[in-house]
Amino acid sequence: MSRISPEEFEALLRESVPFAAGMDAKCVELSDGKAVFRLPFRDDFTRPGGTVSGPLLMALADLAMFAVVLSAVGKVEMAVTTNLNINFLRKPAPVDVIAVARMLKLGKRLAVGEVELFSDGDPDMVAHVTATYSIPPR
Amino acid sequence: MSRISPEEFEALLRESVPFAAGMDAKCVELSDGKAVFRLPFRDDFTRPGGTVSGPLLMALADLAMFAVVLSAVGKVEMAVTTNLNINFLRKPAPVDVIAVARMLKLGKRLAVGEVELFSDGDPDMVAHVTATYSIPPR
Amino acid sequence: MSRISPEEFEALLRESVPFAAGMDAKCVELSDGKAVFRLPFRDDFTRPGGTVSGPLLMALADLAMFAVVLSAVGKVEMAVTTNLNINFLRKPAPVDVIAVARMLKLGKRLAVGEVELFSDGDPDMVAHVTATYSIPPR
Amino acid sequence: MSRISPEEFEALLRESVPFAAGMDAKCVELSDGKAVFRLPFRDDFTRPGGTVSGPLLMALADLAMFAVVLSAVGKVEMAVTTNLNINFLRKPAPVDVIAVARMLKLGKRLAVGEVELFSDGDPDMVAHVTATYSIPPR
Repeated sequence: MSRISPEEFEALLRESVPFAAGMDAKCVELSDGKAVFRLPFRDDFTRPGGTVSGPLLMALADLAMFAVVLSAVGKVEMAVTTNLNINFLRKPAPVDVIAVARMLKLGKRLAVGEVELFSDGDPDMVAHVTATYSIPPR
Repeated sequence: MSRISPEEFEALLRESVPFAAGMDAKCVELSDGKAVFRLPFRDDFTRPGGTVSGPLLMALADLAMFAVVLSAVGKVEMAVTTNLNINFLRKPAPVDVIAVARMLKLGKRLAVGEVELFSDGDPDMVAHVTATYSIPPR
Repeated sequence: MSRISPEEFEALLRESVPFAAGMDAKCVELSDGKAVFRLPFRDDFTRPGGTVSGPLLMALADLAMFAVVLSAVGKVEMAVTTNLNINFLRKPAPVDVIAVARMLKLGKRLAVGEVELFSDGDPDMVAHVTATYSIPPR
Repeated sequence: MSRISPEEFEALLRESVPFAAGMDAKCVELSDGKAVFRLPFRDDFTRPGGTVSGPLLMALADLAMFAVVLSAVGKVEMAVTTNLNINFLRKPAPVDVIAVARMLKLGKRLAVGEVELFSDGDPDMVAHVTATYSIPPR
């Protein structure tokens, strides 16, 4: 079971991470060690060719991984990204983006996870992310 | 000499990458294979603790590397990021962020570069990025 | 179906990549876009604490991804790694290492894949790798 | 000043990391936060085209970064790599490889560094590495 609900996570973003909240990503699913997010398409997200901008994919992946970490350690913790690596695989279509994040390893100090990004309705991954969060001493 | 001026680059962003243009980053220097950008601090860039949000650092680094690529291949080309890796080193102060980007390798198909990110006025790097762009056939 | 058999792949290594062949990794499975390798444990692979050395995990992952690329483009092609990112998750046990590699994207110029590494008999991943290969014009 | 001498570092490798010691890399310089290594060329290091094999470059970079970490925290500590990212930039010539490593950030828990790899006598970088080490509680 997740230690934080989708509603609590979205409220946390609105309070304390206005930039991320501004993307208006929706937490579709949040269980212990797994999160699914949907980023509703907006015209200002595009870059030439009608595709979703790379930095938005990175921001969405970082957000999804943040939720996965909080699902495991709870809302009280302050966790920060230490490393993020993204491979852009295919040009995303001008539609919603779906992010599927899962924990690969939850350690005492570091949490490592993987995020797969898709254009809504298309099974071909548009980008693949791995990210590491540092977890403060508990 | 750069194949694109700072003014041309900023105009290109406004026309075709609204999300990046919305950050309002300034191109301070652009020479062949090197770019310096300044991201003016805004309150909505922060996350808890008063620090600049990680996704903004990633977006700024991606932008700076894009400029480096265009400085070498010219504005007519369409280049896309294929890989970006970031290490977050220190909590950025709530001040402007400076990005210093340089080309490590310009090949026929791939351009690889490095971006160092600093809080304005502090010599300690806050984040380090490497990024690869795919260059279309010329 | 793979465009190269496990036996052909191992013969190719012996002929042309003596360092990799010296690890004596076994190709257990090779199908189109997927490869499984086993690295038999040897005492000289260890580092303090009895664990398999990190560079061996990187070499094994690179090898497995090379096989995945050849499974898709065939033996005649010369492909080279352009980027490899590894997250070390858990201390590997002093036993055989299993590498499971799969293609994430096969493009005209770049192939991107993912490799999961395990200690034999343990379902917890010890390391996670993403790697990009450049494919010469065909 | 480094907390470990080049001779102590090479002795440590011979005792406890036989695989790395087998490469026979020489520690040319070791100061606080910086290390230079030379990997003498050997025929069995090559892959097709007469170039030095990628996994050897990764192993050399990991070794150089390990030395940088020990230069800062001393020989008594047990540090392990948590992340390594490498961009292969140019085909290395069949000559010695030079690795220049430096610390980007030494924290309480993580040390992050950068390694530039060159073919001896050529100023063009052949590969660029960033690596993170986890430092045990002191």
